[in-house]
Amino acid sequence: MSGGRRDRTALGARAQEMIDALAAISAEEGRVTRLYLTPEHRRAADLVGTWMRDAGLSVRMDNAGTMRGSRPAGRPGRSANKALLIGSHIDTVVDAGRYDGNLGVVAGLLALEELAARGVALPFGVDLLAFGDEEGVRFPVTLTSSSVAAGIFDPKTLDATDADGVTLRDALIAFGCDPARLKDDAYVRPGVLGYLEVHIEQGPVLEREKLPLASVSAIAGQSRHVVRIRGEAGHAGTVPMALRHDALAAAAELVLAAEAIARRDRRNALVATVGQIEVRPGAPNVIAAEARFSLDIRAANDEARRAAFQEFRLAARRADTTRHVVVGVETVMEKPVALCAPTLQKTIGSAIGRVTGKAAPNLMSGAGHDGQAMSQLTDFGMIFVRCRAGISHNPREFVTIDDMGAAVEALVATIEDMAAQESR
Amino acid sequence: MSGGRRDRTALGARAQEMIDALAAISAEEGRVTRLYLTPEHRRAADLVGTWMRDAGLSVRMDNAGTMRGSRPAGRPGRSANKALLIGSHIDTVVDAGRYDGNLGVVAGLLALEELAARGVALPFGVDLLAFGDEEGVRFPVTLTSSSVAAGIFDPKTLDATDADGVTLRDALIAFGCDPARLKDDAYVRPGVLGYLEVHIEQGPVLEREKLPLASVSAIAGQSRHVVRIRGEAGHAGTVPMALRHDALAAAAELVLAAEAIARRDRRNALVATVGQIEVRPGAPNVIAAEARFSLDIRAANDEARRAAFQEFRLAARRADTTRHVVVGVETVMEKPVALCAPTLQKTIGSAIGRVTGKAAPNLMSGAGHDGQAMSQLTDFGMIFVRCRAGISHNPREFVTIDDMGAAVEALVATIEDMAAQESR
Repeated sequence: MSGGRRDRTALGARAQEMIDALAAISAEEGRVTRLYLTPEHRRAADLVGTWMRDAGLSVRMDNAGTMRGSRPAGRPGRSANKALLIGSHIDTVVDAGRYDGNLGVVAGLLALEELAARGVALPFGVDLLAFGDEEGVRFPVTLTSSSVAAGIFDPKTLDATDADGVTLRDALIAFGCDPARLKDDAYVRPGVLGYLEVHIEQGPVLEREKLPLASVSAIAGQSRHVVRIRGEAGHAGTVPMALRHDALAAAAELVLAAEAIARRDRRNALVATVGQIEVRPGAPNVIAAEARFSLDIRAANDEARRAAFQEFRLAARRADTTRHVVVGVETVMEKPVALCAPTLQKTIGSAIGRVTGKAAPNLMSGAGHDGQAMSQLTDFGMIFVRCRAGISHNPREFVTIDDMGAAVEALVATIEDMAAQESR
Repeated sequence: MSGGRRDRTALGARAQEMIDALAAISAEEGRVTRLYLTPEHRRAADLVGTWMRDAGLSVRMDNAGTMRGSRPAGRPGRSANKALLIGSHIDTVVDAGRYDGNLGVVAGLLALEELAARGVALPFGVDLLAFGDEEGVRFPVTLTSSSVAAGIFDPKTLDATDADGVTLRDALIAFGCDPARLKDDAYVRPGVLGYLEVHIEQGPVLEREKLPLASVSAIAGQSRHVVRIRGEAGHAGTVPMALRHDALAAAAELVLAAEAIARRDRRNALVATVGQIEVRPGAPNVIAAEARFSLDIRAANDEARRAAFQEFRLAARRADTTRHVVVGVETVMEKPVALCAPTLQKTIGSAIGRVTGKAAPNLMSGAGHDGQAMSQLTDFGMIFVRCRAGISHNPREFVTIDDMGAAVEALVATIEDMAAQESR
């Protein structure tokens, strides 16, 4: 177990050290890329495991690749057999920033160290969870690891394949996990007190308001789709424009349609993103026979989001007809809005107020988080940390040492308040 | 020398046999793939060489790997020391059709056999050329072999490398050619009478018009560009639509702009194609930071083509401003329109008319051909042959035996007319 009490700067500086150590573990030299169930994921999980052990936690990896560090209750009480879950993820996007996810795991660890240094004996156990699949980059699914913990994992997902055709099932086995035992790794509701997560905002609001921290009110609803277009290959020089069945031109039309639909609806914070596109055969002198692109839609309101998707489907059907191509739209993921528990929201807000001396705003999260899955299991609350210019999923992602220190202190204060509430 | 006169069906059937024999020579089992200066190319060239010898031609391979079969003038006259060049190419794209290029070499050979069988003594020599690099698949250059014959080969091209890093120079040497002597293989203008080529249309016009053959009026001018867009990566959930710098959305706008520009100009047979697109980082939940796509523009008129490109550049500049991205447009290739010689066009048209009993249309070729290089040396004319559904660069490429027979007969008639013109 590491040393004595730390002040805000020391906590922030230690967080930065740990984040830098994790960022050094990557599939690519000079960039942070750490996908689910890769050798990089394993090395990062092992480092987190070492830190957990050093902090006096008992450590195991579950069958979804989540590193779990547990500390039993420090004193008796009605919740002595329950666990407060604290977590975030250690997987990243391609060419990622270093704070996204990783800060939450590090902040949880430092908060537990700080509580121990302060001699706080909690009336409940704590499980620190380092999830491995929040970004959903390698497989066309996301929140695999927190879904397993929350007991809502769908075993059909095991057949999902990555770009090399490897199934999630085989990737888990290669990682040393047992897919047949995923069910055993689900928490049971009565044993869980709640789920807390510290995460960077990944948006520009806190910076604009000059505030370091916020309590999260909800996570936006989200759906993810795959759009496939079948046209007809042809020679770029000999097929007149009027006779073409150009799959890429049809895709371009639908990319702009998705953008236009999202731009029209500002009230529900609707956003639509096409971040991935591929065409076949993909030669400069051949008209594209096939195109495939991703579509991600999010909103603060599930009905508004579904209406936007219906509008997109209509645009796809129009393209079918006017461009003489075949458009298929598949929904690969849909998650409704996840509300943070009002009591936790309040506890977090008051803890932030004490730590920062300023009233904490309640923010909606446009980004998805493991809390979405965990909300199916238990109450959840989140602390958002200001990040520079709202930039995330980008190497320029940046959080100050002071803000990280404040985040750890707010998490400590939240846990102390929860302990006090338990004792009442 | 092979037997007596053949009728149209016999000519077409023999063409099919020879084309099938060539199609059996491939780098890949079950597909036709024959790239420049490969063992397959050598075997195909050797087979063509054997046929040439059987037809009484004197045969040599030049230093660009072109198989050349020569027959001297059969009677004296002012052009007895000149040669009519007839040719096409025996390289293919990957997973190619069997008629593209190969039919032109076979038709040339059968025409010479037929002329001999008819006892026609030509007042000029004939060189039959089987070029090896029209498709430009192995190296990032094209028309290498016809450029050498035309005397316009740029020696810098010898440094071009294939996917394995082999230079064109080393590939030529390994093929038994001497790159230092390429210049010696250039024809000199006064020694050449013209260049004729039979080729499949690779487009849908002849089929639509229910005609087997056409005389080509010109090979379209063409430019090839690379468009690069730099935007800013961002989280798909947290960056409001109004604050995005989405490189893929900007690319989509420009793909549609290129299409719209080409659709407006039907007079000049303008076509614009985006066949290749890539985005980075290319994840469903990340706003695209970079996009890169190819743009291929062709037209019957160079000014119209350049005006279309200028219009595209304006659209790119507008996207720069309205979308807050940076668009760069690079021109990687430009070839002006190559006009077929009016006299040859007329001779071919009248020959086709006699053979088919129908007036021959004059077609522009949207595809590139060896004639583009040969036009720098001498007058050139082309006979287009109907191909099913306009499909080319595809195993489904198909030409009927009747149409091939008619093509050989039209070539024979063209050569007879040229001989008659020489005698006047």
